[in-house]
Amino acid sequence: MILTKTEMQKKLESVLTTKRYNHSIGVMKTSEELAMKYGEDSVKAGIAGLLHDCARDIKADEFLQLCKKYNIEFDEVTKTQPQLLHGPVGAKLAMYEYGVTDEAVLEAIYYHTTGYPYMGMLSKIVYIADYIEPGRCFPGVEEVRKLAFRNIDDAMLMALDRTLKHVITKGGLVHMDTVRARNIIILNKKTI
Amino acid sequence: MILTKTEMQKKLESVLTTKRYNHSIGVMKTSEELAMKYGEDSVKAGIAGLLHDCARDIKADEFLQLCKKYNIEFDEVTKTQPQLLHGPVGAKLAMYEYGVTDEAVLEAIYYHTTGYPYMGMLSKIVYIADYIEPGRCFPGVEEVRKLAFRNIDDAMLMALDRTLKHVITKGGLVHMDTVRARNIIILNKKTI
Repeated sequence: MILTKTEMQKKLESVLTTKRYNHSIGVMKTSEELAMKYGEDSVKAGIAGLLHDCARDIKADEFLQLCKKYNIEFDEVTKTQPQLLHGPVGAKLAMYEYGVTDEAVLEAIYYHTTGYPYMGMLSKIVYIADYIEPGRCFPGVEEVRKLAFRNIDDAMLMALDRTLKHVITKGGLVHMDTVRARNIIILNKKTI
Repeated sequence: MILTKTEMQKKLESVLTTKRYNHSIGVMKTSEELAMKYGEDSVKAGIAGLLHDCARDIKADEFLQLCKKYNIEFDEVTKTQPQLLHGPVGAKLAMYEYGVTDEAVLEAIYYHTTGYPYMGMLSKIVYIADYIEPGRCFPGVEEVRKLAFRNIDDAMLMALDRTLKHVITKGGLVHMDTVRARNIIILNKKTI
């Protein structure tokens, strides 16, 4: 089953809230812009951005069934916060329900929530687009927005720093992949 | 080789800077006080507090040789910041140079820098004593100092939160054990 982008949008609109669908369109457009800036395939970036939250509005029971169906494992953080797995579940749905086969697109959907230490450029683009798309409005977003089009790794580091501090301040659990994603960027900057 | 506490102090004084030695005495005393509060062995707590930094002032070359000698492994954070391993190296020196055999004391020395998700009470005591001993003076220390004698886990959480935020703000690498130590406290609070 392979859908056109218009068919994907239509299907996505039927499973997301209006707010989430509008956010997804924002992430799609920003992903396309960032892809053009960084010489990536803007069609792939747009599809990854569009579908990144395709599993985000599934109700808890069905969501847990999908985790089981696709053998998605829980770790010490996701077992109490399964919604963090909407990236991995979303990547499976993108493959089996939307007909996406491109590895980089699936990876970008998979890791867009927690981040991951070995993210490719397309994954970084979707992660940052999710943070800065035009609908996003919170203190500091403008700084990341500007940095995103100058140096994607600097923007990733700023976004990860702020996400980590925000999670710590509100007493939430911190996912290991988020910390490792940040560490790797710092280590890579040191070796360049 | 088993040393008396006075012999340990004399030996320690000869290998630490004056500032570090005074800090160690502070951690020893605070560890003893916390042990009394929480019904732990105050002699063991005092020795763990006294010796926690026994490897802290060893010069880089010798320190790396000791890591090799004791088969202490580097991870992605400690390979660029080996000084974070002064806990594990210190635990080995406490055993082989100061004659400490008590597992809980050695564990407290081992994990006092990064923290660890499965810390026993003695390890928590030394971790917090290291943070709040009377010589410590930085914004927020007074809050942790008060909390330490009310609820050690709440004090641990506050200290870990602040340490993580401090490391993130200064652009440092975050150690996984520190994050997991914090996550476990939050998870345990939820299940109590």
